[in-house]
Amino acid sequence: MTQFFQLLLILVLQISASAESAAPKESVRLVDYVRPFVGTQGEGNTYPGPSAPFSMIQLSPDTDNELWETASGYEYSDSTIMGFSLTHLSGTGIPDLGDFLFMPQIGNPKLVPGTKADPDSGYRSRYSHDEEESSAGYYKVKLQKSGVTVELTAGERAGMIRMTFRANAEASILTDLHHVLTGKKWKVIWSYVRVENNSTVTGFHLVNGWAKERYLYFAARYSRPFDKAEIIGDGQPVIYNTYRFRSDKEASGANLQFLAKYKTRESESIIVKLAVSAVSAENALKNLDAEIPGWNFEELRDKTRTKWERELSRIEIEGSQEEKETFYTSLYHAFLAPNLYEDITGEYRGLDQNIHRAEGFTNYTVFSLWDTYRATHPLFALIQAQRDADMINSMLAHYDQSVEHMLPIWSLQGNETWCMIGYHAGPVIVDAYLKGVKGFDPARAYEAIKTTAMNPNYDNVATYAKLGWVPFEKENQSVSKTLEYAYDDFCIAQMAKALGKKDDANYFAKRAANYKNLFDPSVGLMRGKDSHGEWHTPFNPHFYDESTGVNDFTEGTSWQYSWYVPHDVPGLIALMKGKEQFTEKLDSLFTFREADQSKGVSDIQGRIGEYWHGNEPSHHVIYLYSYAGQPWKAAERLHEVVKSQYGNKPNSLSGNDDCGQMSAWYLFTCMGFYPVCPGSEYYVIGAPQIRKATVHLSNGKTFVMNANNLSDKNIYVQSVALNGKKIDHPFLPCSAVSSGGILTFEMGPEPSKWSTNPQIPK
Amino acid sequence: MTQFFQLLLILVLQISASAESAAPKESVRLVDYVRPFVGTQGEGNTYPGPSAPFSMIQLSPDTDNELWETASGYEYSDSTIMGFSLTHLSGTGIPDLGDFLFMPQIGNPKLVPGTKADPDSGYRSRYSHDEEESSAGYYKVKLQKSGVTVELTAGERAGMIRMTFRANAEASILTDLHHVLTGKKWKVIWSYVRVENNSTVTGFHLVNGWAKERYLYFAARYSRPFDKAEIIGDGQPVIYNTYRFRSDKEASGANLQFLAKYKTRESESIIVKLAVSAVSAENALKNLDAEIPGWNFEELRDKTRTKWERELSRIEIEGSQEEKETFYTSLYHAFLAPNLYEDITGEYRGLDQNIHRAEGFTNYTVFSLWDTYRATHPLFALIQAQRDADMINSMLAHYDQSVEHMLPIWSLQGNETWCMIGYHAGPVIVDAYLKGVKGFDPARAYEAIKTTAMNPNYDNVATYAKLGWVPFEKENQSVSKTLEYAYDDFCIAQMAKALGKKDDANYFAKRAANYKNLFDPSVGLMRGKDSHGEWHTPFNPHFYDESTGVNDFTEGTSWQYSWYVPHDVPGLIALMKGKEQFTEKLDSLFTFREADQSKGVSDIQGRIGEYWHGNEPSHHVIYLYSYAGQPWKAAERLHEVVKSQYGNKPNSLSGNDDCGQMSAWYLFTCMGFYPVCPGSEYYVIGAPQIRKATVHLSNGKTFVMNANNLSDKNIYVQSVALNGKKIDHPFLPCSAVSSGGILTFEMGPEPSKWSTNPQIPK
Repeated sequence: MTQFFQLLLILVLQISASAESAAPKESVRLVDYVRPFVGTQGEGNTYPGPSAPFSMIQLSPDTDNELWETASGYEYSDSTIMGFSLTHLSGTGIPDLGDFLFMPQIGNPKLVPGTKADPDSGYRSRYSHDEEESSAGYYKVKLQKSGVTVELTAGERAGMIRMTFRANAEASILTDLHHVLTGKKWKVIWSYVRVENNSTVTGFHLVNGWAKERYLYFAARYSRPFDKAEIIGDGQPVIYNTYRFRSDKEASGANLQFLAKYKTRESESIIVKLAVSAVSAENALKNLDAEIPGWNFEELRDKTRTKWERELSRIEIEGSQEEKETFYTSLYHAFLAPNLYEDITGEYRGLDQNIHRAEGFTNYTVFSLWDTYRATHPLFALIQAQRDADMINSMLAHYDQSVEHMLPIWSLQGNETWCMIGYHAGPVIVDAYLKGVKGFDPARAYEAIKTTAMNPNYDNVATYAKLGWVPFEKENQSVSKTLEYAYDDFCIAQMAKALGKKDDANYFAKRAANYKNLFDPSVGLMRGKDSHGEWHTPFNPHFYDESTGVNDFTEGTSWQYSWYVPHDVPGLIALMKGKEQFTEKLDSLFTFREADQSKGVSDIQGRIGEYWHGNEPSHHVIYLYSYAGQPWKAAERLHEVVKSQYGNKPNSLSGNDDCGQMSAWYLFTCMGFYPVCPGSEYYVIGAPQIRKATVHLSNGKTFVMNANNLSDKNIYVQSVALNGKKIDHPFLPCSAVSSGGILTFEMGPEPSKWSTNPQIPK
Repeated sequence: MTQFFQLLLILVLQISASAESAAPKESVRLVDYVRPFVGTQGEGNTYPGPSAPFSMIQLSPDTDNELWETASGYEYSDSTIMGFSLTHLSGTGIPDLGDFLFMPQIGNPKLVPGTKADPDSGYRSRYSHDEEESSAGYYKVKLQKSGVTVELTAGERAGMIRMTFRANAEASILTDLHHVLTGKKWKVIWSYVRVENNSTVTGFHLVNGWAKERYLYFAARYSRPFDKAEIIGDGQPVIYNTYRFRSDKEASGANLQFLAKYKTRESESIIVKLAVSAVSAENALKNLDAEIPGWNFEELRDKTRTKWERELSRIEIEGSQEEKETFYTSLYHAFLAPNLYEDITGEYRGLDQNIHRAEGFTNYTVFSLWDTYRATHPLFALIQAQRDADMINSMLAHYDQSVEHMLPIWSLQGNETWCMIGYHAGPVIVDAYLKGVKGFDPARAYEAIKTTAMNPNYDNVATYAKLGWVPFEKENQSVSKTLEYAYDDFCIAQMAKALGKKDDANYFAKRAANYKNLFDPSVGLMRGKDSHGEWHTPFNPHFYDESTGVNDFTEGTSWQYSWYVPHDVPGLIALMKGKEQFTEKLDSLFTFREADQSKGVSDIQGRIGEYWHGNEPSHHVIYLYSYAGQPWKAAERLHEVVKSQYGNKPNSLSGNDDCGQMSAWYLFTCMGFYPVCPGSEYYVIGAPQIRKATVHLSNGKTFVMNANNLSDKNIYVQSVALNGKKIDHPFLPCSAVSSGGILTFEMGPEPSKWSTNPQIPK
């Protein structure tokens, strides 16, 4: 095609795209497709309460605060609610947050939560899903014990709780500063509460949680003055006993609660508007008053729903009601985190625990990078480029504040949890840089990435750099670390090359090949090796020891991790002696049945043989069929996973959503391609799962995917055309997406010859 | 005297004063008279380590951190030192501070302090007073265990520790973040330490102490890079165990320590320069680098000594070496507190726990007002007027931040301890206002004073206002509170009058007379009364119950508190049926002997009968003789107290110095007058205890006191002349002092007729 025709084609496509987006929108509200309950039952670990996109506050009901498996505080199967707290993580495998629980009561107020079996022993209440609803920006439930209807809505830093009481002489609203999602492991170290005036309370707690030292403040304004206000310390009212004065308007201690007491009229609604800050109570009040100056619950809800509508409309799809509900809920979940982490003043609490001001960027936290580098950030690079740049600038600020001079690994509200492995901030930044995301300094970013990858202390990276692998006797999860370092190094080499840093590019390219050092040809799999070059013996490719967590692999087995060479699949195929043996082995991953199917961490489900879709190491694996000339097998497995492990029901998610990674996998997969190797120039084509997607890219361009004849039977790709030109390989250039265009699939009921002998780009 | 002659006289006096101050100064260094050990043995509770005047940091050795009686951390009788911490209170009765202990060691470092009996069981070391010295701005000691000589010096916010080691392969410097002066009651709630680089450490702790929730950060720079740096958490080195990464460069927890390890050469000195901040580690570093950019120990020491010289030269005296040592040490102690409490950035942590910026004033903390309103602040009004204004502005900021809308009672580093009784910030401000201290807003100050005195929650002030007394069945220490409220109310009335607020003046003047309501004529003393007007029965005028602290009196008895009507002594004399019965009763206070002399709190000593000079309620009492026409009795008692309860020895102070109040009593008394009633227009003349004092007032004027013929025998006032004019009464107008002038006493060996029938001003 000549350049002229290319331009002409793009023009035509853009006209057709805008014609489409000019269609009447009033009738279609994407926000109405969102089902926040998806993922709340079982392993998904999402929460049903409202928040704005990427917001700092997330109001949501907590049904549990002790179970590790109820990391978001809400489990759909639970039949009691403890109350409504202000912050929540979406889809993580470890609990934290759940700061500051609010709970209306009637009668003599209870000061302990009580148990699930006996909710009447505390402030906990039974509820029914029949009297519960949730939508983007809104949650409602009727508490059976008190008869109070509770409604929640939330904006960026502030939210509202509306409680509608029956007539009662002894109504009260409890704030429990001692409540956090503890997983029986974390605890509130200290707290402070202050009754600022007859309708305003501020408070603070310091939590030793997954985030080791986390400070959070809140401010609460009540729509009507308290009839009586009472602070409770260690279960007793804080009063002055006439011996040595103590104010009853403030208290500090490890276990504090506040009771706003009212005599209520029938159907009286009391609204509490709330905000949080990691800096100070003063800033929490500023956040509150700036965002919610008035008392209009619906106004805030509608404002937040409008924000969601704007974000969700970045991708428009055609599909059934169920498909749309699943798709837009996935997009909603992908847009919940990372979270805004700065006050209206621009101040935030840094990793060094000093108060910083975000200059020239918006600061974010909650970087679940081992998960989100895979598909979430690559999605952001396309349709959330400005936020992606802000997130990168946030990571660079983290780097500046890090005593180890490292980019985040898994950072959470001014803390580094050091959770999971690798140095995957690298791929996120490199992928963004190579995809044209603007708004951060590439030289500064590269310096941070390189310094992180050269850290002499972290996880035996230095030994890896010297030896070519992480020796298992020196480091836990040595094989997974070696493999992921190698991939990260590939990304760094790509950026070094782009920046003209030849020596660095060569150095990291060499490190990128380190994966080969742990491939044991005698077993045809990746295997632990000690510092003398001896293989780890005995070797069981299916071994997984959850009880100790000490293993050569990270949340997985050799059988699973042996596929982890996203940056050099041809190299891996060669190690496995060619495509035939490669695909045979891959087949057996899905068919392998072990006697004991309960092995592995219990919250990793979505298992098809030893393919565990509920955890990230498997996420790129199905797409490897596309490299090996058997795309129909990818089509079958992708269809199977999408149909069985996603949906619009509370239990639809098979694994932790992990701050949107499970959802982002689904979104890409639906559109027919996936970033197997972020930082490379190609997406890998699988098989589309929705009929049409129109992607409004952040750069103003539009990308359209059509899957002609797609149906539950027509799951196989027959042919693919990019901008009208057929392609017979599964490698979709990233530039072809970001420059806008049309990707057209012809689908059919049987495997085709399409892409059965592809040239794999290196 | 005509106005012309008055002016002439003042001119002459000023010329003579400047002639005097033009005398060669090089030979006389007032700072050399300071003996910081005074008050470190027994009840004085001072500390021997260095600090600048009114400074934020106070480096000093701690010999104890558990005894309530060793509130400043150092007891001269102890023979072991735990280490050297950064902050100390001067003379308080309750321990707190002692933040961040530094201790050099050799050999395998100990991580627990060890006991006094067995110091070798920990890092504690024996030392000898023969190898110890202390002067203003400097402290030195040789630690016997390690052979390390430790020297301390300090400036405003930063100080230095110089440690001179012998050659040792295993030298180390411990920082114990867990160390505070606990009195076995307080504790470190949380802490954080961070090895910023190979010679810099920052840290933080949150202390639940006398100050309920106190945040303090430190920064430390070492003069040479660590050979090895180690963080200790709960007694174990913080290392990475290859399972889940943890940095060895930072840690948080309740029990943290840091070890800087060195191989030292013979006589090698290692300096640690240190600063504190209540805001952040970042600010602590800023404070450090701004104040001590280099490494010159002597330069900082000399700078601080120059500051002390400037402050001490506000009063020049003639006297013996011992008298000068006692006097200038008292002045030194009076100038240790309140303490600077803002960073070099102007930021400080407010009572509301928000970070504030002091705009237009310098922020101070440590307001021991029940003590210091008596003589310390009246002294400041004369010779530290600018700081007094800053302190008042600091109290007004406290008021603005107070959830109870109250001026400080006993405030300590962003906390209100609610220690002691009354609302004595009022007298401090009123006295300053009436004495002409400029630099604060009187209208705003008055509003704060009045609001404080009208608080409906605090210590039954509201009942007092309504009933005329605090009923004993409703409130502990009801008599002392009634009496002190009445005095405070007198002050408020004075200011209201001066501001033209007639109604307020009348209202508070009426409250000022409330003391009469608790005078029981049947016993001739002050006595508890219930809300029905019934006297507290049985009544024992000498009753003091230390064990419960529940009593009608505050740290005293009826016999002592019955003299507390500083604002209306004539009224009290009238209640006591005239001067004769008044003085007889007063005599018996000094002669009363009870079988059990151990009653009362053990740290209140300085007892002459039931006159307990070691505690503040007695401080004005001797001067009451002057009102009653028996000034010679005052002269005898004043001489007795000065000679027996003050001096230049470690055990010279008979009671807690209480942030300078014991010392300020001495300073005024030496000069022959005392502020019996701050907020009134008169000082009360007693009997001078030094030959001459030249006071350089903050307003630029000079006031001179001459005590002609004073000697150990000539202790009686024969005559008094003010600016050359004889006066035959003991009431020295405050204006006569503040306008500059000469007060001349003629002293003799026998009581004279001087002032035996004075007209008492009302």
